[in-house]
Amino acid sequence: EHGEDEVTVLERQLTLAGLGGTTPEFEFAQNMTVFPQAKHDVLGLDGLLTAEEREVRDRVRAFAEKEIAPVIYPFWERAEFPFELVPGFQRLGIGGGTVKGYGCQGLSMLACAMAGIELARVDGSCSTFYLVHTFLATLTIGLLGSEEQKQELLPGLGNFKTVGCWALTEPSNGSDASALTTTARRVQGGWVLNGRKRWIGNAPWCDVAVIWARNQESSAVNAFIVRCKENPGYSAKKMENKIALRCVQNGDITLKECFVPDSDRIPGVTGFGDTNKVLALSRVMVAWQPVGLAMGAYDMAARYLSQRQQFGAPLASFQLMQEKLQRMLSTVQAMWLMAWRLTKLCEAGTMTHEQASLCKAWTTLRGREVVALGRELLGGNGILAEFLVAKHFCDLEAYFSYEGTYEINALVAGRGATGISAIKPPRRGAV
Amino acid sequence: EHGEDEVTVLERQLTLAGLGGTTPEFEFAQNMTVFPQAKHDVLGLDGLLTAEEREVRDRVRAFAEKEIAPVIYPFWERAEFPFELVPGFQRLGIGGGTVKGYGCQGLSMLACAMAGIELARVDGSCSTFYLVHTFLATLTIGLLGSEEQKQELLPGLGNFKTVGCWALTEPSNGSDASALTTTARRVQGGWVLNGRKRWIGNAPWCDVAVIWARNQESSAVNAFIVRCKENPGYSAKKMENKIALRCVQNGDITLKECFVPDSDRIPGVTGFGDTNKVLALSRVMVAWQPVGLAMGAYDMAARYLSQRQQFGAPLASFQLMQEKLQRMLSTVQAMWLMAWRLTKLCEAGTMTHEQASLCKAWTTLRGREVVALGRELLGGNGILAEFLVAKHFCDLEAYFSYEGTYEINALVAGRGATGISAIKPPRRGAV
Amino acid sequence: EHGEDEVTVLERQLTLAGLGGTTPEFEFAQNMTVFPQAKHDVLGLDGLLTAEEREVRDRVRAFAEKEIAPVIYPFWERAEFPFELVPGFQRLGIGGGTVKGYGCQGLSMLACAMAGIELARVDGSCSTFYLVHTFLATLTIGLLGSEEQKQELLPGLGNFKTVGCWALTEPSNGSDASALTTTARRVQGGWVLNGRKRWIGNAPWCDVAVIWARNQESSAVNAFIVRCKENPGYSAKKMENKIALRCVQNGDITLKECFVPDSDRIPGVTGFGDTNKVLALSRVMVAWQPVGLAMGAYDMAARYLSQRQQFGAPLASFQLMQEKLQRMLSTVQAMWLMAWRLTKLCEAGTMTHEQASLCKAWTTLRGREVVALGRELLGGNGILAEFLVAKHFCDLEAYFSYEGTYEINALVAGRGATGISAIKPPRRGAV
Amino acid sequence: EHGEDEVTVLERQLTLAGLGGTTPEFEFAQNMTVFPQAKHDVLGLDGLLTAEEREVRDRVRAFAEKEIAPVIYPFWERAEFPFELVPGFQRLGIGGGTVKGYGCQGLSMLACAMAGIELARVDGSCSTFYLVHTFLATLTIGLLGSEEQKQELLPGLGNFKTVGCWALTEPSNGSDASALTTTARRVQGGWVLNGRKRWIGNAPWCDVAVIWARNQESSAVNAFIVRCKENPGYSAKKMENKIALRCVQNGDITLKECFVPDSDRIPGVTGFGDTNKVLALSRVMVAWQPVGLAMGAYDMAARYLSQRQQFGAPLASFQLMQEKLQRMLSTVQAMWLMAWRLTKLCEAGTMTHEQASLCKAWTTLRGREVVALGRELLGGNGILAEFLVAKHFCDLEAYFSYEGTYEINALVAGRGATGISAIKPPRRGAV
Ligand SMILES: Cc1cc2nc3c(=O)[nH]c(=O)nc-3n(C[C@H](O)[C@H](O)[C@H](O)COP(=O)(O)OP(=O)(O)OC[C@H]3O[C@@H](n4cnc5c(N)ncnc54)[C@H](O)[C@@H]3O)c2cc1C
Ligand SMILES: Cc1cc2nc3c(=O)[nH]c(=O)nc-3n(C[C@H](O)[C@H](O)[C@H](O)COP(=O)(O)OP(=O)(O)OC[C@H]3O[C@@H](n4cnc5c(N)ncnc54)[C@H](O)[C@@H]3O)c2cc1C
Ligand SMILES: Cc1cc2nc3c(=O)[nH]c(=O)nc-3n(C[C@H](O)[C@H](O)[C@H](O)COP(=O)(O)OP(=O)(O)OC[C@H]3O[C@@H](n4cnc5c(N)ncnc54)[C@H](O)[C@@H]3O)c2cc1C
Ligand SMILES: Cc1cc2nc3c(=O)[nH]c(=O)nc-3n(C[C@H](O)[C@H](O)[C@H](O)COP(=O)(O)OP(=O)(O)OC[C@H]3O[C@@H](n4cnc5c(N)ncnc54)[C@H](O)[C@@H]3O)c2cc1C
Repeated sequence: EHGEDEVTVLERQLTLAGLGGTTPEFEFAQNMTVFPQAKHDVLGLDGLLTAEEREVRDRVRAFAEKEIAPVIYPFWERAEFPFELVPGFQRLGIGGGTVKGYGCQGLSMLACAMAGIELARVDGSCSTFYLVHTFLATLTIGLLGSEEQKQELLPGLGNFKTVGCWALTEPSNGSDASALTTTARRVQGGWVLNGRKRWIGNAPWCDVAVIWARNQESSAVNAFIVRCKENPGYSAKKMENKIALRCVQNGDITLKECFVPDSDRIPGVTGFGDTNKVLALSRVMVAWQPVGLAMGAYDMAARYLSQRQQFGAPLASFQLMQEKLQRMLSTVQAMWLMAWRLTKLCEAGTMTHEQASLCKAWTTLRGREVVALGRELLGGNGILAEFLVAKHFCDLEAYFSYEGTYEINALVAGRGATGISAIKPPRRGAV
Repeated sequence: EHGEDEVTVLERQLTLAGLGGTTPEFEFAQNMTVFPQAKHDVLGLDGLLTAEEREVRDRVRAFAEKEIAPVIYPFWERAEFPFELVPGFQRLGIGGGTVKGYGCQGLSMLACAMAGIELARVDGSCSTFYLVHTFLATLTIGLLGSEEQKQELLPGLGNFKTVGCWALTEPSNGSDASALTTTARRVQGGWVLNGRKRWIGNAPWCDVAVIWARNQESSAVNAFIVRCKENPGYSAKKMENKIALRCVQNGDITLKECFVPDSDRIPGVTGFGDTNKVLALSRVMVAWQPVGLAMGAYDMAARYLSQRQQFGAPLASFQLMQEKLQRMLSTVQAMWLMAWRLTKLCEAGTMTHEQASLCKAWTTLRGREVVALGRELLGGNGILAEFLVAKHFCDLEAYFSYEGTYEINALVAGRGATGISAIKPPRRGAV
Repeated sequence: EHGEDEVTVLERQLTLAGLGGTTPEFEFAQNMTVFPQAKHDVLGLDGLLTAEEREVRDRVRAFAEKEIAPVIYPFWERAEFPFELVPGFQRLGIGGGTVKGYGCQGLSMLACAMAGIELARVDGSCSTFYLVHTFLATLTIGLLGSEEQKQELLPGLGNFKTVGCWALTEPSNGSDASALTTTARRVQGGWVLNGRKRWIGNAPWCDVAVIWARNQESSAVNAFIVRCKENPGYSAKKMENKIALRCVQNGDITLKECFVPDSDRIPGVTGFGDTNKVLALSRVMVAWQPVGLAMGAYDMAARYLSQRQQFGAPLASFQLMQEKLQRMLSTVQAMWLMAWRLTKLCEAGTMTHEQASLCKAWTTLRGREVVALGRELLGGNGILAEFLVAKHFCDLEAYFSYEGTYEINALVAGRGATGISAIKPPRRGAV
Repeated sequence: EHGEDEVTVLERQLTLAGLGGTTPEFEFAQNMTVFPQAKHDVLGLDGLLTAEEREVRDRVRAFAEKEIAPVIYPFWERAEFPFELVPGFQRLGIGGGTVKGYGCQGLSMLACAMAGIELARVDGSCSTFYLVHTFLATLTIGLLGSEEQKQELLPGLGNFKTVGCWALTEPSNGSDASALTTTARRVQGGWVLNGRKRWIGNAPWCDVAVIWARNQESSAVNAFIVRCKENPGYSAKKMENKIALRCVQNGDITLKECFVPDSDRIPGVTGFGDTNKVLALSRVMVAWQPVGLAMGAYDMAARYLSQRQQFGAPLASFQLMQEKLQRMLSTVQAMWLMAWRLTKLCEAGTMTHEQASLCKAWTTLRGREVVALGRELLGGNGILAEFLVAKHFCDLEAYFSYEGTYEINALVAGRGATGISAIKPPRRGAV
């Protein structure tokens, strides 16, 4: 009398096993290697895309589901970068992001966002790899580089033959980035950089680094291109023990009398305002990343609940499961719309920092809710990376804290709302 | 050394007093009688409206800010309907909602939504009065009534000369509405209704009631028009002690051998499916209502925090205030977008019940967060209805529980997501 | 096939009606006039009380359930003080709180807390009336008054024949109370007070007011006893439009050349430190109040869910209902334990401000969760004051914001945890 | 003008470096290898312990801080069991838990709880290792084993020379454990077990397994002792890719014609009721585990915020940081008290399943909030296992889902509150 008879159970197991993605240890639900169908768009959000954007979306989705999904979680477990996927990225045709010309695709922001979320839906690390390389390193050169720098570097960056990193954060300066302490000293024919950088994605293995440093003469913030593999003044140590975005290789960089020729100073950068120009654009992409994670977590949870049974019924039958599942679903819709609206403003050229911060803070906040729900819906299997939600649950934390922590973005948005900056510490004095 | 000197404080008080909306008891911030400027649209959501929709929006906003705001809270306090505002509604040109012809405005759904949220931004009760009258009573007749019924009733309903109510819920049947027990007995020349209804908005004073009852012959659900003021079989007792939507007069209706002529049976209704057709449309409007409350709560909180000072600085300077304020703001954007998307689907004719339930559940859930934040940002004054947020804090609870409670809508949405209904009680048996 | 047959429904209605607390409009569940049994103690918390404390608890519970519950909600609806209950308070034997001698009961803190929560369980206003009168007004005199003041006033205060208020907050100074601006000017034979007070509970009708004012000579904070009914310099206007604690009459006080004889200056007060001594003790009681509301909300929700049926089963059968109900229950246990521990430290004489603030901030935060859950569990009836949870939902907001708002208490607790005060506004300067 | 001058920064760095626990890559705050001081008890909870319990607490704290903390996170990163710590466990004197005699310590439940949380404060895996071994495997034998089984096995189990696992969960039966499908077939001289188990902690390397199986004759649930290393019918595959409790080795067990002699059937077990007896006790310990994680997360966050500076001030100065820190702190107090009360009931012999479930559900729910707050307070470093909070953030998820998921425990508690079981799936039928 325990719900269904044994035959049915066995039949179901065999069917699922036939679809792939199950193991002899657990044949009751498929894991992420056979990626769940996209069921997360229930408000026809698709309809807000152009045909081209849809095409990019479909292309990247196919790559992510078919090439990333079957192989990625062991890399994540071992905290290794999946170099074997790079050729796929090279073929994918999303390189260079919005940068036009020089072999770059010149996609719309929304098309890039579609690429970003489809990667994130399957794997946050791959999405962040794309983001750091494209929307930080490549974009800085595309936006602020000299004509020579563009001609030399963009083609390679645009097709992932050359990979870049972007180094702003320092051990002593995270949230307070604009007070950075790495120095650039004017010397004959160039500049000498000294200082340390921390958390720099791709740094341990990439080809070129965009380094932000304080010009000792002007004390303004400048940017420099460092050829990582050739420059003895550059070294980068891989950061270990991360719980999030484990495939991304973050580096602690040491710059020790690191010489950069004049031609590798990025001429468009004259102060931290230029850093911010890049950050504003990349922040749009970061605002999208939790949307991708949330989409993936929903798709997986929806499939899992329909496959897994307990007490003689699919988990999907239980009220407590349904309320959470639909909360994930509704929140995904709202997150998507929020990031979409931001992107439209960005494309229209009217977007402000405050808008970007407002949306990034919010999508990370709500994204956290969605992936946590997904995690718990899967019970024990919800803590196994191969069932996706565990991986997404961890990865979301990085989004919450990078490109400005939740608090910093909230305070930037709060400044926008109030006209008052509250970022500084409180005044001294008794109360 | 406590921040600012007395002169400044005095000056500020005088300035605020000059702007109106302060009292001799508290001149440090304006209350709702002088309504705060609309600052809640920071993502250019305005740009998603047509010119006509914007015009409706502006028209209703002006009415709400200038005619409702200065007078409403004492009505709310006394739990009275503001009859003096009815002429304003008559002039407003939003009557009849989407119904076309017969003196109705035939507005787009989005235009109606703009009307609904602009009313709700200032007063939830006025918005619900509009909703019940227009999107339940008038709409039922417009959609399912006979030509004669339309010709007779729509002109008056469309300009608020006749006011309607819509009676589905019963004491014994709230969430389980489709199992309603009020009966309609076939008699010579018409029908006799017997039963009770509960929670019916406008019932204690309105002109016509749409009554849902079970046809004793077919046992299908039918609908009938009852002329409240003339029919001795109809009586309605005002419900007291509400904490939410206090200006709306909800009634406990008794139908005692209530005769309805054949001409007042609504011919388009042949079963509960027709009830649901109306509910689906009105649910779109209900999904918007929390957006309106949230917008108003934000606008008030933003102004209050900039006017009120403590510890020598505007409250807007404090981190804890800014984080909450921007959380309200971001959530408002997302709520608006969510309801907007639903409305677009509705206008396109593709909207499902599941979509409407998903969005309604979500906007009420998040709306609750926003108004609670607004309430706490104002400190003690946050519990006074004249500072708006207290009123909105209470009113939101009605939205959370009507037109399907949060749970029921979540389970409808969950059914959409899973293909399984979980609304029924659990099976019996030990565990 | 809709669950149960009509006979059973009817039987159930009749049974409930026989128990009282139902109305002809809704016989499917009892309202608060017949108060639900206490079911909220499921961890034997009772066992942590002494016999005497249990006795006080039982005595006050009986009074609250039998005398307050049947009559209170119409007072709340009309925002009137229930003067007819005062004789009951006089007989109750809880007057004077912890004050010893002079006709006061000299109860233990925990016994007082039991009184406070049993009142709050049924009605927050009654609990606050007790609190303001006893733990602010009476306590200040008991702790810091002269022998003559004690002998004259305590007997009357201790048996509720004389009722007191306690006036610290000002229109310009809420959270920043210690910067108060009401002045006390030395004159022949006494003092002259000038200034305004806001939010003062009982002020519109009580007999004696404890007024905090700044000594113009020393600029220290002093306290004075004002005989409200006899002193022409004192006037108090009732604050209207409150959504919370509607039976408590809060007053906006004006002190205009208000003369106080030397004998009515409270000699034990020499600075704001003394204000804080009283506040620390009353804050323990305020930390308990949400516990009382939460207990009552739980008891009501538990009974309601067992009586009300939908879809052919008691609401108590549904998973979504059970999860919320048990969340209320567990949170009640934790809140009780937290307040109990604080009280024990207080009784031991080692309690710090930081401890009191930590606990008060937390019980109000979690209390808000509990009453909101209770509110939603009752559906539509959850917005009617007669079903208790609506009233508690509103009243909790006052606790969240008075005796230090959530933020101020959190920052005091934060100061305790970090050794750094963050109450001041941020430093100026660009970021 | 960026807050403080370079000298101070350097001095601070040197001081911190001198204290240990910093790296050349980040000298601005100490990591978990030098464990932060215990600051989490701010309500004198210590005072609720007996001297003996305090002694156990101090002993285990010293072990955890000095022996586990400096070495554990690389094991966690590599998902390896820290075998080198076993001798420490052997010396620790907490073996056998509450079991009396046979070389076991016969500690009070509260003493065991103190051991459990002090381990969890530093490392969840070590705490779970202790739990599974002691409060599942050892306890089952101590409680339900034969005299011979006790004499043979308890001494070794009691001093960690023999390590045990406890196998109830199956691939097909997680939440629905009582419907387990592993079979025990009566044969000459013993029993033959067939089936699979999943998630079994210690299974891949331990010495003895307690296996729960269905007696094919009686169809009652029985329990058997399997000598893992000698029995060819037993095999266990380590589960990979866990995000939580990564040092615990969970196994997928296969039982294939696994013969167990009569002497290894546990005679005290005659049905699932006996399984539940053990689970009730171990659930008390599981209810404590999140308390330990939360304590550790608080201690680390408090230290980190005081050491790390941004914008010229310790992070501890910022309001947004303080509010979260104190919320962690208050919640820790409440969690501790809740688990303590449960333990007292357990010691008194009156504890019910419903009570244990209520508390376990709540401490895991709130524990999740605390570790998430800790995680975010540390910014980027909050995702590195060496800063503790990341590890705790992940580990908490296991507690949320094991020993009954949150939902199952909530429904057991809900059954206690309502008298109705809601665990079964909903009835079929349209709504
Ligand atoms: C996975 C990952 C990848 C990254 N990749 C890159 C990269 O490629 N390139 C790069 O340059 N950087 C990168 N970063 C760094 C990232 O930008 C920083 O981590 C981030 O800016 C936060 O700085 P922090 O970690 O030093 O935290 P901190 O600044 O030390 O913040 C710690 C805590 O203090 C709070 N806080 C700080 N200041 C305030 C304030 N004024 N008021 C209130 N609260 C405050 C924060 O919100 C946070 O909770 C990466 C980080 C991560 C985690
Ligand atoms: C201010 C206001 C105005 C209204 N105006 C109108 C009106 O004009 N016309 C009209 O016809 N009606 C009106 N209503 C009625 C409204 O539609 C009902 O209140 C609503 O449908 C809920 O019914 P109920 O109040 O009987 O709650 P119940 O159905 O008794 O629900 C009580 C609780 O049980 C839960 N619950 C019920 N069934 C399930 C289930 N299967 N699974 C899990 N949980 C469940 C609910 O979610 C809720 O939390 C109004 C209500 C309010 C509050
Ligand atoms: C029902 C009720 C009864 C009361 N009874 C009495 C009484 O009997 N006697 C009496 O003397 N008083 C009484 N009070 C007053 C009460 O103590 C004050 O309301 C309270 O101190 C808050 O002050 P405020 O309302 O002016 O809010 P404000 O101080 O203006 O606070 C508004 C908002 O700003 C926030 N805020 C303020 N300062 C800071 C800061 N530094 N950092 C971050 N956020 C900040 C607050 O947290 C709040 O969210 C009562 C209040 C209420 C509501
Ligand atoms: C780290 C770890 C260590 C463990 N160690 C052991 C061990 O040593 N020995 C051992 O025997 N077991 C162990 N377990 C197993 C643990 O007891 C199970 O994971 C747990 O009982 C949940 O079962 P499941 O994972 O199969 O989830 P499922 O039962 O599949 O649950 C999946 C989801 O469905 C929900 N759900 C299930 N039934 C219902 C219902 N009726 N109504 C509503 N929702 C429902 C759950 O709450 C959950 O959200 C361990 C698990 C973990 C994660």
